[in-house]
Amino acid sequence: MPLQKSWVESANTAETDFPLNNLPYGVFDAGDGTMPRCGVAIGDMIFDLCKAESNGLVEIGGAAVFDVPSWNNFMELGPEAWADLRRQLTDLLGEGAEPRSDYLVSQADVTMIMPITVAEYTDFYAGRHHATNVGTMFRGAENALPPNWLSIPIGYNGRASSVVVSGTEVRRPWGQLKGPDEALPRFEPCKRFDLELEFGAIVGQPSEGPVTVEEADDMIFGYVLLNDWSARDIQAWEYQPLGPFQAKATATTISPWIVTKAALEPFRTSTPERERELLPYLQEPRAMNYDVNLEVALAPENLVETVIARTNVKELYYSAAQQLTHHTTSGCPMQVGDLLGSGTISGTEKDSRGSLLELSWSGKEPIALDGGETRSFLEDGDTLTLRGGAQGDGYRVGFGDCTGKVIAALADPFAR
Amino acid sequence: MPLQKSWVESANTAETDFPLNNLPYGVFDAGDGTMPRCGVAIGDMIFDLCKAESNGLVEIGGAAVFDVPSWNNFMELGPEAWADLRRQLTDLLGEGAEPRSDYLVSQADVTMIMPITVAEYTDFYAGRHHATNVGTMFRGAENALPPNWLSIPIGYNGRASSVVVSGTEVRRPWGQLKGPDEALPRFEPCKRFDLELEFGAIVGQPSEGPVTVEEADDMIFGYVLLNDWSARDIQAWEYQPLGPFQAKATATTISPWIVTKAALEPFRTSTPERERELLPYLQEPRAMNYDVNLEVALAPENLVETVIARTNVKELYYSAAQQLTHHTTSGCPMQVGDLLGSGTISGTEKDSRGSLLELSWSGKEPIALDGGETRSFLEDGDTLTLRGGAQGDGYRVGFGDCTGKVIAALADPFAR
Repeated sequence: MPLQKSWVESANTAETDFPLNNLPYGVFDAGDGTMPRCGVAIGDMIFDLCKAESNGLVEIGGAAVFDVPSWNNFMELGPEAWADLRRQLTDLLGEGAEPRSDYLVSQADVTMIMPITVAEYTDFYAGRHHATNVGTMFRGAENALPPNWLSIPIGYNGRASSVVVSGTEVRRPWGQLKGPDEALPRFEPCKRFDLELEFGAIVGQPSEGPVTVEEADDMIFGYVLLNDWSARDIQAWEYQPLGPFQAKATATTISPWIVTKAALEPFRTSTPERERELLPYLQEPRAMNYDVNLEVALAPENLVETVIARTNVKELYYSAAQQLTHHTTSGCPMQVGDLLGSGTISGTEKDSRGSLLELSWSGKEPIALDGGETRSFLEDGDTLTLRGGAQGDGYRVGFGDCTGKVIAALADPFAR
Repeated sequence: MPLQKSWVESANTAETDFPLNNLPYGVFDAGDGTMPRCGVAIGDMIFDLCKAESNGLVEIGGAAVFDVPSWNNFMELGPEAWADLRRQLTDLLGEGAEPRSDYLVSQADVTMIMPITVAEYTDFYAGRHHATNVGTMFRGAENALPPNWLSIPIGYNGRASSVVVSGTEVRRPWGQLKGPDEALPRFEPCKRFDLELEFGAIVGQPSEGPVTVEEADDMIFGYVLLNDWSARDIQAWEYQPLGPFQAKATATTISPWIVTKAALEPFRTSTPERERELLPYLQEPRAMNYDVNLEVALAPENLVETVIARTNVKELYYSAAQQLTHHTTSGCPMQVGDLLGSGTISGTEKDSRGSLLELSWSGKEPIALDGGETRSFLEDGDTLTLRGGAQGDGYRVGFGDCTGKVIAALADPFAR
């Protein structure tokens, strides 16, 4: 499919993340005292859905769903409504339609806020190269992958309250740290603060019991870029035997725009060939992963940014649909607004690794930045930006920047 | 403090869980088509708070808070409102007050539903004897406690959507199981389904950054009994390296009544002496644990129940306030309605262990039930009941039964 043209001129280029082919969903605050509103990105503009609905330009299901600053109510309506809105928007914003610039707001003039209320947040570990790298560092190359890894999309529950939107500053956490040669831990600011480059799936329909992979795919509303900020030193001391906890609870940043499953349809691709056959319940009836290019850029305070990693969502060993199916096997109820992080996505090459832990090989090989600095882990003032997009024929379906700046730890977290 | 008397006669005995000293909060469904309503247990009755508020008998903060079937809105009002309501109820229900039986509903005539909307659910591992028992089984007596255990209230994020109220049937889950001598896992119904006897703390105030132990205690609204149903065989195969996931996602049952911190005030007790000094941020300025007797009863289908364990909340090594403080160290935002499970509470004696895993020593020593059966793990049809209460001078501050029946696994979870 080629670039679909819009009457919004800035959408008709190969460079924008937001051509008519995309139509990603977000929530923007116009900064004029009005309530934040649901909108659709088109070129460098936002189409105001709240206004369009209240004026009858858009109508979904008979009752207002865009009078709240979140996409949860719309997600609840289900896949038919999702398809219906996409059709209406494609018509309204397409080249032949009546230009309605009074419904457009410039992206440069607004602040994006969280697009959804996150019900619960689960973080998976579905990147094989990442799991292998981390396993090699901690257990040696022979025992790199845990025995269950090729059978289970390993995941753990994260903290929904810590999910923030792109642009939110991230404060370096305190925590219990213990060096390998120390007898006891100290309570100090994290020294090994890191990013994790992930792809996030947003669950748009609920479930009560186990769901098949096909049903799981149907439940997914769309995808975001996701940075799972990680305190490696806190994690090293706390994670046995019940997994990461405070190391992952400072913040998880998502991109402001939800790219719908429909927009990513032309970019479906299969998960990799299996060296261990999956149990039948996890096998995919068709391609359910995506070909989406990803990159990570790091900019020290007042310095130029360096792209420190490039990889692709197709490196994932388990798709979000497979993750979601596994999530329901125990009968775990899923809710509208659940967020599933993929786990860090690394490729096979050294510069395709999605965390500083891997890029600097646990600090042993600091990476060089364009401005002359080096990094093993994040420094205060560093701004991290994730970018991603699926490359079409003369157009890109992108996510917009997923960014966050690291700010200094509190002087004393318990001072009052 | 002795028994405080009420005009509700059934509240004036040493046997009831619900004397005037208690006044626990729940939500009941009268089964007559009306909306479920907030109520207060008194003897064998419930005082209808929704009706009392709408008639002006109870007034908190000027606006209606009991017109919804959940205590979240009331919790948000904060500690002064909490104290205010308790004062009003003590006056209204005390011996000298005007009897208002038209505000009473019999507990026998209603169904209790979830008292709160659980925001997020965290499960700790704060019982030393439990951690020691499990560690001994899996790693030997010398390495029983993980190295971090005496320094950190270890916890992991659970799944809020799986928390259910007492009385809800619990379906045996399916999952990936792998025996120690098997090369690959099978997908089958859980064979080692278990309970965990826990004490749950309900967070009634939010936080943004780290909070002290004193502040954490102030944020806690009350406590419930909690059964963290656990699939031991699923857990054994899945939990490395990121912790328990589907093994703990089938269900967690809580008691229908929230016993307030105020009601438990006379029963405060200190956590045990430390063999390793805690880091300053975790030290408690005063007694923040509770002396609450606990028991677990198991009744096979159509057979008498057997009390299989008796223990006490005071066995916990870390109080809920300490758990909550640790939870916030990374900057993790806490929300109104967060639920913190204590982890399994076991005592030092064989019959004071809070899980079948420990009681049957991983199935090696099945326990005998009064009806002649034995149990290593739970069988279909088994009903589990947790009970708990603080023993005062001629009265008990109790929680009501926290019960759940195990029903058979689905024949085929993916059949459609």
